Amino acid sequence: MIKITLPDGAVREYEAGTSALDVAKSISEGLARKVLAATINGEVWDATRPINNDALLKLLTWDDTDGKSTFWHSSAHLLAEAVETMFPGAKFWVGPAIEKGFYYDMDLGDRKLSEEDLASLEKKMNELAKQKNVYLRKEISKAEAIKYFEDKGDEYKLDLLGNLTDGGITFYTQGGFTDLCRGPHIPDTGFIKAIKLMSVAGAYWKGDEKNRQLTRVYGVTFPAQKELDEYLAMLEEAKKRDHRKLGKELSIFTMDDDVGQGLPLWMPNGTIIIEELEKLAKETENAGGYKRVVTPHIAKESMYLTSGHLPYYADSMFPPMEMDGEKYYLKAMNCPHHHKIFDAEQKSYKDLPYRIAEYGTCYRYEQSGELFGLMRVRCLHMNDAHIYCTKEQFAAEFRAVNDMYIKYFKIFGVDKYVMRLSLHEPSKLGQKYVNEPALWQETEAMVRNVLIESNIPYVEVHDEAAFYGPKIDVQIWSAIGREFTLATNQVDFNSGNKFKLSFTNQHNQPEVPLIIHRAPLGTHERFIGFLLEHYAGKFPTWLAPLQVKILPISDKFKDYANTIFNKLKKADIRVEIDDRNEKIGKKIRDTELARVPYMLVIGEKEMNEEKASIRRQGKGDLGAKNVDEFVAEIKEEILLRSDNQ
Amino acid sequence: MIKITLPDGAVREYEAGTSALDVAKSISEGLARKVLAATINGEVWDATRPINNDALLKLLTWDDTDGKSTFWHSSAHLLAEAVETMFPGAKFWVGPAIEKGFYYDMDLGDRKLSEEDLASLEKKMNELAKQKNVYLRKEISKAEAIKYFEDKGDEYKLDLLGNLTDGGITFYTQGGFTDLCRGPHIPDTGFIKAIKLMSVAGAYWKGDEKNRQLTRVYGVTFPAQKELDEYLAMLEEAKKRDHRKLGKELSIFTMDDDVGQGLPLWMPNGTIIIEELEKLAKETENAGGYKRVVTPHIAKESMYLTSGHLPYYADSMFPPMEMDGEKYYLKAMNCPHHHKIFDAEQKSYKDLPYRIAEYGTCYRYEQSGELFGLMRVRCLHMNDAHIYCTKEQFAAEFRAVNDMYIKYFKIFGVDKYVMRLSLHEPSKLGQKYVNEPALWQETEAMVRNVLIESNIPYVEVHDEAAFYGPKIDVQIWSAIGREFTLATNQVDFNSGNKFKLSFTNQHNQPEVPLIIHRAPLGTHERFIGFLLEHYAGKFPTWLAPLQVKILPISDKFKDYANTIFNKLKKADIRVEIDDRNEKIGKKIRDTELARVPYMLVIGEKEMNEEKASIRRQGKGDLGAKNVDEFVAEIKEEILLRSDNQ
Repeated sequence: MIKITLPDGAVREYEAGTSALDVAKSISEGLARKVLAATINGEVWDATRPINNDALLKLLTWDDTDGKSTFWHSSAHLLAEAVETMFPGAKFWVGPAIEKGFYYDMDLGDRKLSEEDLASLEKKMNELAKQKNVYLRKEISKAEAIKYFEDKGDEYKLDLLGNLTDGGITFYTQGGFTDLCRGPHIPDTGFIKAIKLMSVAGAYWKGDEKNRQLTRVYGVTFPAQKELDEYLAMLEEAKKRDHRKLGKELSIFTMDDDVGQGLPLWMPNGTIIIEELEKLAKETENAGGYKRVVTPHIAKESMYLTSGHLPYYADSMFPPMEMDGEKYYLKAMNCPHHHKIFDAEQKSYKDLPYRIAEYGTCYRYEQSGELFGLMRVRCLHMNDAHIYCTKEQFAAEFRAVNDMYIKYFKIFGVDKYVMRLSLHEPSKLGQKYVNEPALWQETEAMVRNVLIESNIPYVEVHDEAAFYGPKIDVQIWSAIGREFTLATNQVDFNSGNKFKLSFTNQHNQPEVPLIIHRAPLGTHERFIGFLLEHYAGKFPTWLAPLQVKILPISDKFKDYANTIFNKLKKADIRVEIDDRNEKIGKKIRDTELARVPYMLVIGEKEMNEEKASIRRQGKGDLGAKNVDEFVAEIKEEILLRSDNQ
Repeated sequence: MIKITLPDGAVREYEAGTSALDVAKSISEGLARKVLAATINGEVWDATRPINNDALLKLLTWDDTDGKSTFWHSSAHLLAEAVETMFPGAKFWVGPAIEKGFYYDMDLGDRKLSEEDLASLEKKMNELAKQKNVYLRKEISKAEAIKYFEDKGDEYKLDLLGNLTDGGITFYTQGGFTDLCRGPHIPDTGFIKAIKLMSVAGAYWKGDEKNRQLTRVYGVTFPAQKELDEYLAMLEEAKKRDHRKLGKELSIFTMDDDVGQGLPLWMPNGTIIIEELEKLAKETENAGGYKRVVTPHIAKESMYLTSGHLPYYADSMFPPMEMDGEKYYLKAMNCPHHHKIFDAEQKSYKDLPYRIAEYGTCYRYEQSGELFGLMRVRCLHMNDAHIYCTKEQFAAEFRAVNDMYIKYFKIFGVDKYVMRLSLHEPSKLGQKYVNEPALWQETEAMVRNVLIESNIPYVEVHDEAAFYGPKIDVQIWSAIGREFTLATNQVDFNSGNKFKLSFTNQHNQPEVPLIIHRAPLGTHERFIGFLLEHYAGKFPTWLAPLQVKILPISDKFKDYANTIFNKLKKADIRVEIDDRNEKIGKKIRDTELARVPYMLVIGEKEMNEEKASIRRQGKGDLGAKNVDEFVAEIKEEILLRSDNQ
């Protein structure tokens, strides 16, 4: 008998050679139907693979990232099987799961895949899936494996085999298709209920353009048709909401070849959004006891040698400027500058927690191929702050930071979010992680407790902490269900030592502060990119570049339009008059298109009654309203930052 | 007879050989007593030098920069005469006028000048000045000049002579001292009524540390004792108000070796001032119809080749970063980025004037020896904006910009200011100045008219315009009478062409806009440096980092202190409580020292009456006041940005 320990700590006994699927079945048949794979002592395994020793076991379903990856990797094998059936002689390179779905790179000779081919392949995959063929794992010697692919004539798999050592090589077979593969895989093809092949692209073998070009087929699969339908609808909507398209239509930002790639220029409309976000951040941070600082965008090499960013992070930094015999670098993060401000004056425990905030602009080098609109840029305006505190203050400070995140999520209507808590791996202390075992345990426990007590949805991820402490990555979902990684919240018990920071504690002794790095609103670039999609460009009134447009029906109402304009202007509302010589229908359509929250249509009746006909973006005609009343209402709406759409 | 044309256009006839001094005498004896030199056809001459041909003449007095320079250069000769009298065998290198005063570099053998020596030299100079010795100009052949200094044994003057060509060499003699000198000089030493030798320093001959070290004596002189007294008092006060000293005492900014020279880090107190200044700028610019933009701090080489900053301005820029096979530069000015934003969308005449503003951070290379506190830095947060307009709109736009300057001067209590209008020189069109003769005349006339109509004190300076148009340098004087160059306001009719900017005019034709560059608040660095001196650190309430400090007489009044604190906090007042266990006298002294505008002292009586005893920085005790009343008053004071000190 072997002992299987479940995630809740429960220990159950099974015969040696039992599988994760057997364990699941022993709990409930319903659960077993959802199991895609399992982690055994932290390693992902086939759900059907025999377990011969005591083990920690976690069942993986569609809700787990590793469950999804296994599902998609198995779908890649299914694709390959369909290809081999339909195009005999096809040769295969690799077929991994990716962030959303999978691909397989293959050599189809001279054949170019058409739309029709993809449809046929989908059909064939569906047929094969319905056969519920099991994914069979087989350990095999290197010699046998080489023989198999020599017989098959697949030089790509032989190339892969060349790099493998005998002893750990496995084949997986489902139906009539066998692949060289480390696995793991789902129990059988029947789990794959919905299939969509998304696109075909060329991909040089091993990414080298001197090599042959292979055919890469991208696909995505789901355990239910409904999920595929929703996913495709979301993609369709995401296309309409593409932040690059909306960013141009709404004059939010522009890019310019002479400025450089990945360096957005914020136009007046985008700058209004930036300033509203900064106002929100400053108000919130001011209420939270933060002070503000302003630091240069450059520093000398010595600073980044102290911080350790050089040489380890050099690839992500801009290259140096050589001046006066020294190297200067654009800052890729604000922390070292903030540490210098902490250090500029002697601190005592009475000065702590010392919280300093800056919307600091950082520059990071990204490969030009990686750049993407506002989502991957080289210039980042970061909602940054650093909190220097004692160990005793840490939990309260960390909780306040989390509360700030949640406050922001409410304001922006982000209903779905999760915090990924990344922890250290004790065996890597002193290498991947700073060697402070007690501090790791202490801070990880504190962070976990805060998350539990605050009732925040979170997942724990092993062995992904920062070098200097546990970190939380915050993931949020836009209104159409797309996932964005927004920001991080990190504990740091190492930089204080590196920068020789200290405060005088109550016993009159120097003590190194703990540091929290936090950026709840991430960067302007990524966050405004997210908001463009999230709101489909229809910003809530407080964020909208133009809040009200006055549409006089004819020139006759110009003076009245000006009266209203001045009232709104006086109330600090962003307002314009559409005084073009156009029909009112066209004026309304154009204003709708510009996503202006409110239109005030004025004609004879409105003028005589000192009213305006109010049209709300997305809601249509709200009827006539007294102008002063409208001003009071919109001011309230803006003040509360409500999303009255 | 020759014709002398005066600046007002009047033409008078004189005998050939008349001098500027004769002309002055013919106008008034009083005027003649003030004449130090003159410009003859734009060239500065001795007032006593014979004029033999028709000429444009401008008399120069102490009020003219060139008048002052002549006065101080003559004072340097007077110093040399005193030195030669007291230390026979002294040899002389050069003795120029400088921004404030003069110096003379000399070789005194092994003698080191002491404080007493300076006092003796001053005494001797005063003696010689009272002799009213005339400065006698004499043209001399190179051979004779060489013989004179060979006989005297002064190898320094011989070195100077080596570089001169025969024909234009002159000697000047006053009393017993003769110098090789181009002049000009004042009529006689009697004009020099007040003398102060400021300091002695070592200076390598020709600035080369491999050469002998000479003795440099700095001095300053005035035409009246009162002016010297005022100047020395001002220097004394300026020392107390040194922005570097105050900046440290008040925790405004800090510098750090690892960040780099000339790169201030703004601490929380400094950042509050920055944010208040930006708020003022944004309000003012918003009311003025400006839109705001945000642009990256870098751009590719191609941008600066287009703008012409490269290669001509390369020495003032940071060195490039080489990346992806291209060169990127930190921006030294915001204009090119703003032009790109203008150009991002097609403009019509209806979009003009297009005014875009940004507190943009620029980086400029300054020699490390030139760096000085906040006054000469490498990182500049600039109150920048660019106005793109038609020729018809230009005068109104330019006037609005000037009005903005004057509005700011009022707010900051700058009573003395002057605008230096720099004009082009027609003979240099196509070389030093863009070759647009009509545009130069037109815009210079427009600018001059605006200045005259707005009743703004201004002076005109020939041949100092920018390459692309006339410019105005704004000079202001601090409360203690020190002069600062604050900002520039420039017309630009060239960059539009360079960047191919255009708008569609009313005739549906493309037209290049005129551009106004303006930065009324200069840079945060220089302006806050100025304000520190101007206010001696005692900022008006709206700018003060901490506005109110509550001083409870004892712990007993802690709760009442908190009640007041919350009231002030709710009203957005920057407030703190001094809850230390200290005597009230010490609390008051410490708060005075921190230059906090208001102190609220509270004890038994105040608590019972819901009052606080108000102490105003610089005014002392204002008596007890109801707290709500005080809150209303201070809010009003802040809102009006008044300087109620």
